Amino acid sequence: MPSAFATNMRFKFSILAIFLEVLIIILFGIFVRYENTQPTTKDIFLYPFFQDVHVMIFVGFGFLMTFLKKYGFSSVGINMLIAALGLQWGTLMQGFWHMEAQKINIGIKSMINADFSTATVLISFGAVLGKTSPVQMLIMTILEITIFSCNEHLVVKVLGATDTGASMTIHAFGAYFGLSAARVLYRPGLKEGHKNEESVYHSDMFAMIGTLFLWLFWPSFNSAMAHADLQQRTIINTYFSMAACTLTAFALSSLVEHRGKLDMVHIQNATLAGGVAVGSCADMSIYPLGAMLIGSIAGLISVIGFKFLTPFFFSKLKIHDTCGVHNLHGLPGLLGGLASIIAAMAHVKLGETSPSAPMQAAALGCTIGIALVGGAFAGLVLNLPFLGQPPDENCYNDSVYWEVPAEETRPAGQFGDYGDHRTVNINM
Amino acid sequence: MPSAFATNMRFKFSILAIFLEVLIIILFGIFVRYENTQPTTKDIFLYPFFQDVHVMIFVGFGFLMTFLKKYGFSSVGINMLIAALGLQWGTLMQGFWHMEAQKINIGIKSMINADFSTATVLISFGAVLGKTSPVQMLIMTILEITIFSCNEHLVVKVLGATDTGASMTIHAFGAYFGLSAARVLYRPGLKEGHKNEESVYHSDMFAMIGTLFLWLFWPSFNSAMAHADLQQRTIINTYFSMAACTLTAFALSSLVEHRGKLDMVHIQNATLAGGVAVGSCADMSIYPLGAMLIGSIAGLISVIGFKFLTPFFFSKLKIHDTCGVHNLHGLPGLLGGLASIIAAMAHVKLGETSPSAPMQAAALGCTIGIALVGGAFAGLVLNLPFLGQPPDENCYNDSVYWEVPAEETRPAGQFGDYGDHRTVNINM
Amino acid sequence: MPSAFATNMRFKFSILAIFLEVLIIILFGIFVRYENTQPTTKDIFLYPFFQDVHVMIFVGFGFLMTFLKKYGFSSVGINMLIAALGLQWGTLMQGFWHMEAQKINIGIKSMINADFSTATVLISFGAVLGKTSPVQMLIMTILEITIFSCNEHLVVKVLGATDTGASMTIHAFGAYFGLSAARVLYRPGLKEGHKNEESVYHSDMFAMIGTLFLWLFWPSFNSAMAHADLQQRTIINTYFSMAACTLTAFALSSLVEHRGKLDMVHIQNATLAGGVAVGSCADMSIYPLGAMLIGSIAGLISVIGFKFLTPFFFSKLKIHDTCGVHNLHGLPGLLGGLASIIAAMAHVKLGETSPSAPMQAAALGCTIGIALVGGAFAGLVLNLPFLGQPPDENCYNDSVYWEVPAEETRPAGQFGDYGDHRTVNINM
Repeated sequence: MPSAFATNMRFKFSILAIFLEVLIIILFGIFVRYENTQPTTKDIFLYPFFQDVHVMIFVGFGFLMTFLKKYGFSSVGINMLIAALGLQWGTLMQGFWHMEAQKINIGIKSMINADFSTATVLISFGAVLGKTSPVQMLIMTILEITIFSCNEHLVVKVLGATDTGASMTIHAFGAYFGLSAARVLYRPGLKEGHKNEESVYHSDMFAMIGTLFLWLFWPSFNSAMAHADLQQRTIINTYFSMAACTLTAFALSSLVEHRGKLDMVHIQNATLAGGVAVGSCADMSIYPLGAMLIGSIAGLISVIGFKFLTPFFFSKLKIHDTCGVHNLHGLPGLLGGLASIIAAMAHVKLGETSPSAPMQAAALGCTIGIALVGGAFAGLVLNLPFLGQPPDENCYNDSVYWEVPAEETRPAGQFGDYGDHRTVNINM
Repeated sequence: MPSAFATNMRFKFSILAIFLEVLIIILFGIFVRYENTQPTTKDIFLYPFFQDVHVMIFVGFGFLMTFLKKYGFSSVGINMLIAALGLQWGTLMQGFWHMEAQKINIGIKSMINADFSTATVLISFGAVLGKTSPVQMLIMTILEITIFSCNEHLVVKVLGATDTGASMTIHAFGAYFGLSAARVLYRPGLKEGHKNEESVYHSDMFAMIGTLFLWLFWPSFNSAMAHADLQQRTIINTYFSMAACTLTAFALSSLVEHRGKLDMVHIQNATLAGGVAVGSCADMSIYPLGAMLIGSIAGLISVIGFKFLTPFFFSKLKIHDTCGVHNLHGLPGLLGGLASIIAAMAHVKLGETSPSAPMQAAALGCTIGIALVGGAFAGLVLNLPFLGQPPDENCYNDSVYWEVPAEETRPAGQFGDYGDHRTVNINM
Repeated sequence: MPSAFATNMRFKFSILAIFLEVLIIILFGIFVRYENTQPTTKDIFLYPFFQDVHVMIFVGFGFLMTFLKKYGFSSVGINMLIAALGLQWGTLMQGFWHMEAQKINIGIKSMINADFSTATVLISFGAVLGKTSPVQMLIMTILEITIFSCNEHLVVKVLGATDTGASMTIHAFGAYFGLSAARVLYRPGLKEGHKNEESVYHSDMFAMIGTLFLWLFWPSFNSAMAHADLQQRTIINTYFSMAACTLTAFALSSLVEHRGKLDMVHIQNATLAGGVAVGSCADMSIYPLGAMLIGSIAGLISVIGFKFLTPFFFSKLKIHDTCGVHNLHGLPGLLGGLASIIAAMAHVKLGETSPSAPMQAAALGCTIGIALVGGAFAGLVLNLPFLGQPPDENCYNDSVYWEVPAEETRPAGQFGDYGDHRTVNINM
């Protein structure tokens, strides 16, 4: 077996993970301090918002990706690994842009931002799901969050654009970064598909846990970093955008399928597009009417993307987007950026002012450009031959990197070394 | 096949859903405004309560109904569809009763009320689960929320009754509306039962996700609309009512079963009856003692209802209550109404005053009467022959309205059009 | 069959549960009052923290234990029963130590403490999982919470030790209590293992639901009872301890397994050890650096415990720890106690003062001692011959105490008495 497919991770994964944790602990020791000794009421007030976002990152993204029949451990487990590493690295990368007296001050807000930064990697993970190793994902986490933090600084601080719910800086960025990486990592051997790239009934049910927790807490995601006076408006706009998007996604799913049946892929993903698309202008005075229009269009383009664009990307552009992140985060993220440009042109108010259309456009352009270049660079790095990438035939299969129950059983963990009572359960 | 069973939903579902969404968006454009530009601290303070209720509606009700072995997609998916439509329609229907200057002002409170209004339909959905089409459920959502909003206005504003946790206006209303509709929709062909009206081990596990999130957040449900000074008391009463109910439900479940075994149906449902029953007087000064007595009685009557009343309703009254909503919402809702009458007669305090026993009794009577008549009317409308109702043999089966994995597998969604790598997984 | 294995629970379980509920209601009637008529803003402010802890107790602990292939109903169901009984009993036991004018005043804080007290029993439940009856668990709940409340009073009030996140008083206590009970309940007949003491793919997925909700809300668990000024710091310390622990646990899991594969047992459990270990000094000024060091060590010792210590305990010490609670709660709990002693010796600040090292050491010693003696006593009581303990061959099997679907199907509950349409689903 060529070294490119040396999937034994015993030392390379362990050593890399421990090295990263040691490095992070040293950097935290040098740079990171508590925000202040007496927290203001304001910050702890954001804690429920933080917890909602936290659930989205670990349960929402994690379970959303469990739809594949033999890749549940990796989906929810590697999602957890990426997020745990990413939130530490994100604290540092975002903190370096906002140091005071050479120190990074952390509080509830920095924790929300750290969780946000992990979302970009989890979105990109969806594009390469099933075709990468845990070692590769550790590296991608470090690379992507570093680049994300630079782009976010550029968009928010340098350009002065508004992107409260992060349609552009998180969703479009994560999607196009992932698609670009997936293009570089393209496997000709999988162009006919793969027998494990399928769901089963129960795996689709598990995925709905992810969908629902993402759906429910999206108003918190979009409003967590909004100005306190605008938080309620942001919540309302997101709530109605999601609801309108859901109805549209159901309608379109039935319309594009033979015999009008609903497709779980659309329900799991396209119902969420409204939250992505309304993000950039969720705190503007767009009224529920505007939010519902944005949500409806998002649901529509997301279903159409799944039906027509993803197969086209796969067969013509050689971009194999496992979870269809282009339809959930890419297109709706673009729509969110466009909506913010239009809102700016229409002088829609954001607090006392209104955003600048050219700056919103520049933000969207920069984000897509940096994501595409950054993703391609990440793809090249991940193609290095010793990173444990799985061979084609073992893609979408937990058993490459996980101890998986034989015939769907495994001994209860604490007896991992006792082989003698390991039995096969033929009834399951 | 007769047109009554024309289950191809391609155009009728899509067009109805899009028509409803367009209608709603137009009505929102005309009538709906943000509550105020500067939200008070008070309202955003309710946001964690809203989020708990939101989780109950989508995850709680959705997963509670996934106990059927082949109806998980519909349970959690159509639940989501009903709730997304219902919260938009509920915002309008409840808003029309409280307009200021011809406008509906929305905020966190109206969002909580909108979520509440969807609960009635989701309860009724449980009574007809497995025997209706998504088209029928869209229509039932519109009808039921319209009638619910009128009844709620009658009970709270006209009669001046108290029903903070909505034992009567949501739980009893939703249950008797659903039972009445189920009576009209009775299918003689299913009187011997149906092979798919069963659970499997894993579907019962999924249902427990729903049960637990309902159980946990019930104190938020009952207290979300309570007066701020009484919120803590409402939380405490609900907490102890649920706990006492749970112990009683476990005890009774073991008592009524052969060999004293516990029955998952009781654990999934009857443990929640305490939250329903304590709703009407949760903000009164009934003390934990009173709450625990109400909860214990609720757990008891709920298990007894499942064991003896539901089979009787089915065989004698021709009411086939798929989820047993009568035992979870109907009987405990009645108990809640009765408890509020007794509390009023005993001059139990609610804030500075105590409620009026005759008005509580009138509220209970009106609610049951309107629910029964409204449900029968809804049933007649749903019986119209072109609404895609499934034939008897296809009841309780997702595959009528959903793309379902063949042999429990389906190709990962984004390749829905690539038939060539669709394989059958015989190991699952 | 000997009476020791009389697993028919019909009367003994029902009567015991009803007796306990009646006893509790009487005691509540005599002793329990609302905290005050006008709740302070402060207390209701803790409600989101309470809800997070509440989710951990019922969903977190409940689903974490569902990893066994045929024991999901018991894991999540009996967990619910224990918690519902425990929170009532805990309210009384903790309340008796803090009465004012012969009354127990309850509010959000007492609800958080009541939930906390149930955690000890749920941890111990993990040590004896699959080998006990529901009757035994009711008795253990009463015994353990009574002893826990005494130990907590001793540690916090008499010794004046600090243990905000309860590394010692909950985690170490629950673990050593359970291990001691498991030693007394040791079954020689299971020394070769048991065919049902295994997971299947889907049961490991369900267990991850528990893991993630525990992981996410651990900052709330540790900070719920912290001084308001220190709450944010407690949250931050726990957040980074968990993240560092997760990376270390993944690294070690891969390092100790053949071919470097990850083991679900480690991911489900050892990733949580950081929350346990940082508990005792989470509100101290240990900086993120200190928190991450504690978390990393916790992840390391937890994986090593699963790999080497649990098999040793089983084969040499005759302690069969089903869930490996020693590695998740025992060792990390000890580490938390040690960390608080070291922090006290280093004069690390807790608010204006710093804790006393001798008192921290005394607290740790007392807790372990009382847990071991208390657990052994509980084990002796549970060994009484009429408590429905399952025979060896029926361990780890729901069907002893639950109605379980034949061939993984059961009739939908409301037709429990209609045997005629009970069919076998061979496709599942």
